Amino acid sequence: MSLAAATATERLPDGDWSTPIQSGWDIRGNANGGYLLALAGRAMLAHSGRAAPVSLTAHYLSPGKAGPAFVRASTVKAGRQLTTVRAELVAGSPGDGAGRTVLALLGAFGELDSAADDQPRWIDAEPPALPPLAECLASADQADPIEVGLRRRVQVALHPDDAGFYTGEPSGTAQIRGWFNLRDDEPIDPVALLLAADAFPPTAFNARMPRGWSPTVELTVHIRARPAPGWLRARFTSRYIRDGMLEEDGELWDSADRLVAQSRQLALVARPESP
Amino acid sequence: MSLAAATATERLPDGDWSTPIQSGWDIRGNANGGYLLALAGRAMLAHSGRAAPVSLTAHYLSPGKAGPAFVRASTVKAGRQLTTVRAELVAGSPGDGAGRTVLALLGAFGELDSAADDQPRWIDAEPPALPPLAECLASADQADPIEVGLRRRVQVALHPDDAGFYTGEPSGTAQIRGWFNLRDDEPIDPVALLLAADAFPPTAFNARMPRGWSPTVELTVHIRARPAPGWLRARFTSRYIRDGMLEEDGELWDSADRLVAQSRQLALVARPESP
Repeated sequence: MSLAAATATERLPDGDWSTPIQSGWDIRGNANGGYLLALAGRAMLAHSGRAAPVSLTAHYLSPGKAGPAFVRASTVKAGRQLTTVRAELVAGSPGDGAGRTVLALLGAFGELDSAADDQPRWIDAEPPALPPLAECLASADQADPIEVGLRRRVQVALHPDDAGFYTGEPSGTAQIRGWFNLRDDEPIDPVALLLAADAFPPTAFNARMPRGWSPTVELTVHIRARPAPGWLRARFTSRYIRDGMLEEDGELWDSADRLVAQSRQLALVARPESP
Repeated sequence: MSLAAATATERLPDGDWSTPIQSGWDIRGNANGGYLLALAGRAMLAHSGRAAPVSLTAHYLSPGKAGPAFVRASTVKAGRQLTTVRAELVAGSPGDGAGRTVLALLGAFGELDSAADDQPRWIDAEPPALPPLAECLASADQADPIEVGLRRRVQVALHPDDAGFYTGEPSGTAQIRGWFNLRDDEPIDPVALLLAADAFPPTAFNARMPRGWSPTVELTVHIRARPAPGWLRARFTSRYIRDGMLEEDGELWDSADRLVAQSRQLALVARPESP
């Protein structure tokens, strides 16, 4: 199933957007956070009438299980450059009165293509140095005690230096670098970047933290440019894990060496006993 | 006027929160973005009934001028650990029907003190190395063609290496480091961190970008801990200014060398001709 199909949405008579949560984009039965962000983001984008998400923030309120769901969106402001939309992704059928809010969202949508490349620039960043794809470790091939359906939906291949946690040898550095692509040559559009921003294993796995469910409180993704065709290179790092919280910063670079998305999430440190 | 007084709020009969925008916390007559975030954050915090903000995102929709304003808040979810609130900060008087939305917000509020320091930790970050306060440059003392009322409301003192833009000699690196405090020994509470996260000059001033109005699209602040008494040390950096957009990442460290807040904003690159 393509991401486009898994995030397909249509407007319902009452104005909500139908956004069923598809099966298989999950980790242990709970839909991946990046998939949920792409799902809701696609509907909010349609609501905005714009070309692409520019900044999207989600708060994660409850797990998303495969099944009917909808996005209730409202436009806060339709400006010249940006349209600001707030929304909730609700599990359940609209109108049945028993919905459960999965995400609360706030985002800005605009025309990425109008951001001309001739504007002033200043850059102190570069794509992660990765070995060729064939020398990286495809997550779908790893033996992993955690059942990650998502691994069969996307293509993620980790830098060998960052993949030791799979075999009980975490690197000791809270970093995960790797390649990302959709399957079957599906093009990566800006909405797909929302998925990619949360489709890698947690950095904490390499920091020798307890391995368990680390619930995301909040995730913000900034879409900086429309990606050129091809695999993305990704780098995720955490710098400060303390007081029960951690941040995870992500960068996604396209095949033309352009930074196409930045992400940051705040998560709670995993409690080993949690499901 | 203390920050506490400038962000004082009370519940109105219709359930909104009165949050007048006070004069003097401005840049060229427009209220500073950090002040607006603290103003709205204080009201959302009251709405949540919790102890402190944990994560707060604001989209900046229109300038905030001194005058009557209110926050319309609604609780999305009151969970065990966190309460999620969405809100709008509206300029105008509730009920007069002519309000203009200044900020759209989404935040999580909780009990920072419950984040025990005995949890697992992993740290790869440290406070910025700053010369003693007396050797830094108080922004209030600088000759600056831009009228920044905020400089008289807070105490900001820049690392000498990062203050050259004041005299037409930007450092060439998109970084601003310095000390921060409120005036008159007012304690820095978690809401004050929301102000501090956007109270420094833009990093772009040091990157030799056109100096002008660089509108914030979105600002997220994560409050990581309740600050110990005393001055904060701050570091703001930008790594990628391109395609008409830039990110600015901030860190605030307290006197006990604890990271108390992280921030990231997405802004539009300044257009020199803009007001």
